[in-house]
Amino acid sequence: MSKKLQSFIEIAAESHFPLENLPFGVFKPRQGPARIGVAIGDSILDLSVLEEEGIFQLPEFQDRKVFADDALNSFLSLGRPAWRKTRAILQRLLSIETAELRDNAALRDLALYAQREVTMQLPARIGDYTDFYSSYHHAHNVGTMLRGPENALMPNWKWLPVGYHGRSSSIVVSGTDVRRPHGQIKAPEAAEPAFGSTRSFDFELEMAFFIGPGNSLGDPVPIARAEEHIFGMVLMNDWSARDVQAWEYQPLGPFLAKNFCTSISPWVVTLDALEPFRKPLPAQDPAPLQYLRGSHESTYDIQLEARLQTASLEAPHVITRSNFQHLYWSIAQQLAHHTVGGCNLRPGDLLASGTISGPTEDSRGCMLELSWRGANPLQLPNGEMRKWLEDGDTLAISGWAQGDGYRIGFGEVTGKVLAAAE
Amino acid sequence: MSKKLQSFIEIAAESHFPLENLPFGVFKPRQGPARIGVAIGDSILDLSVLEEEGIFQLPEFQDRKVFADDALNSFLSLGRPAWRKTRAILQRLLSIETAELRDNAALRDLALYAQREVTMQLPARIGDYTDFYSSYHHAHNVGTMLRGPENALMPNWKWLPVGYHGRSSSIVVSGTDVRRPHGQIKAPEAAEPAFGSTRSFDFELEMAFFIGPGNSLGDPVPIARAEEHIFGMVLMNDWSARDVQAWEYQPLGPFLAKNFCTSISPWVVTLDALEPFRKPLPAQDPAPLQYLRGSHESTYDIQLEARLQTASLEAPHVITRSNFQHLYWSIAQQLAHHTVGGCNLRPGDLLASGTISGPTEDSRGCMLELSWRGANPLQLPNGEMRKWLEDGDTLAISGWAQGDGYRIGFGEVTGKVLAAAE
Repeated sequence: MSKKLQSFIEIAAESHFPLENLPFGVFKPRQGPARIGVAIGDSILDLSVLEEEGIFQLPEFQDRKVFADDALNSFLSLGRPAWRKTRAILQRLLSIETAELRDNAALRDLALYAQREVTMQLPARIGDYTDFYSSYHHAHNVGTMLRGPENALMPNWKWLPVGYHGRSSSIVVSGTDVRRPHGQIKAPEAAEPAFGSTRSFDFELEMAFFIGPGNSLGDPVPIARAEEHIFGMVLMNDWSARDVQAWEYQPLGPFLAKNFCTSISPWVVTLDALEPFRKPLPAQDPAPLQYLRGSHESTYDIQLEARLQTASLEAPHVITRSNFQHLYWSIAQQLAHHTVGGCNLRPGDLLASGTISGPTEDSRGCMLELSWRGANPLQLPNGEMRKWLEDGDTLAISGWAQGDGYRIGFGEVTGKVLAAAE
Repeated sequence: MSKKLQSFIEIAAESHFPLENLPFGVFKPRQGPARIGVAIGDSILDLSVLEEEGIFQLPEFQDRKVFADDALNSFLSLGRPAWRKTRAILQRLLSIETAELRDNAALRDLALYAQREVTMQLPARIGDYTDFYSSYHHAHNVGTMLRGPENALMPNWKWLPVGYHGRSSSIVVSGTDVRRPHGQIKAPEAAEPAFGSTRSFDFELEMAFFIGPGNSLGDPVPIARAEEHIFGMVLMNDWSARDVQAWEYQPLGPFLAKNFCTSISPWVVTLDALEPFRKPLPAQDPAPLQYLRGSHESTYDIQLEARLQTASLEAPHVITRSNFQHLYWSIAQQLAHHTVGGCNLRPGDLLASGTISGPTEDSRGCMLELSWRGANPLQLPNGEMRKWLEDGDTLAISGWAQGDGYRIGFGEVTGKVLAAAE
């Protein structure tokens, strides 16, 4: 895991985007349509320009243009061998030892952008979005609040990765403001619900992965092949209205409490870039059923933190630190379970982890847990208190895998809470 | 509501597709790509041919071709005024009194197909699919089985149209076989769940509506304008695995129990065609909150029936008769509720009713209710018994609004149950 690769592009030591990373995203330059690029240091390499130059001579591309597009879906559909070859071509091209781009000022001018000069967009057209509930600590904390510690987990929780279908139309890219939603709310002491804006606006620290080729309807993906269908991962903030959720969610699950907005980070970090950070999955007891058992179930060591910036705080304040490793179920198990009844996944579908909470109080992944439903408000450095997010608050989640002298980073997903509409 | 319109195309009295209907769908002829048409009697009128001929000179089309497409999405995005004008043009063109197509044998040859000679496809690219739970009798029956008659309905049920996000990737068109899915099942007496194919395979008799222009994120659709965003309706069968559902659904709702397949009928019947069959909505008590109150909440009188054909039955047997009017919540209320927190709907999104059960035992909309969880198996005319659907069974749902001498029909949604994969 020590730093080996060097680019002719200058990359700061703390950068999330060294040559080892090369995450894929969709960006719109000041001029011209959106296209696909990879992040390198503070720059972006425009893959549509390289494609036009004939850099990618891969049989998988079949003479199609896949990078002059405003979404990764075509590239996602090509599968892991094509992803790996593309990555290898790019690592060679950006290496300090390769002259092809390094010494071609005209091509560099065409193909390199400063990240600060472009607008990032959603990485893919997301067909279906699924949200799991795979953090033991999160599920246990929430269950404890609702039903007490003895009955915190539902009987099914350790047998299957509980999940539900979310709303794909309202997934937005990092930096999009989010308006406090209205909904039906029933106060515990009230006889009837009332209509109003949420009084318990929350974030959820999550990660999510994009589907590659996917499967046909009726044709499950066995767990041993699950990772062939996973392109890479992003950070996610699953904004939530807890009072709306409490009133609406029985018996069919969350609906308006979640579907008003979900934010993701713009750069998709590939599983190939994360490979050096693979770790064993936490022990699973009871042993999962056969279809959820791989030969070596694993996860990734990805450090996560959420920072809150209020209108009056001098600097963003870290309110929680968690890790992707805390999840009980692996992404391969989630995918195998999702398809075991025959449900088809398509390129660009998004599957999310659910809130990622750790075992300690300072690693909880949402305000619901951090403030224990408002009973223990968070105190910020300037003395402000927070039970929930308030108007004007900006919540940012960042994440990275820490190597020896470099980081495979995800950048961040950020969003500011706007006051409810009149 | 009496029969007024006559076409030069012969239309049987019992046809679902008289000149008053003109439902839109996507069909693939033996030669050439899929395109958009309307059903008329046993025929289909190819709108892409008419568009090529310059029949639709509407400002809303803005010189775009909208009918030479394998999905209705572009047409849906145009909105009600364009839908109405298109419908008026087609009713005039197909009228016995209009010579333009009637007397042009070459154009008739080009533009008319026999329905039996084409393959119907899904009418639209469905971005997001939502399923409501809006039948009082269905919710009450299911709740009674689970919690007894006193606690049958959750406290929220009469205050808001309960709904959840479903899976859009696995929505298929009528005629597609459906394979019995595998999943985790925990028998009531068992200590642990086991993996196997469902033993309680069910259908759900539903209807669903397609979204037109839709709304921007953060911009709710007021109930008074809801119908501007509803193009038309189809029949739906929400296939369900009840044993999988019972084990998985808490606390986030149904997942694998539903997402293996959902079938819809191919012809979208417009709200304009249904207008003569508008009826008052059943009384709502308590009175809904303001955002769910229109000036004249209404529904439609649409007769529905489900027919079961087993391998040994001589003819399909009607196992239930219901009506769209039995629903407690209107489609306008469903749409207003869906968007009230800011969730955006897009052209081609699909919103379904949930199982439509009536007040009587013979109007229940699924096997779960018809056999009361297996306690009262259905007896078929040949002596066969059914608690649930069995391999080889074909379930067909049909529906129509009955006028004086004509029917505004939906055709049917049908599917055959295949044995589970090995």
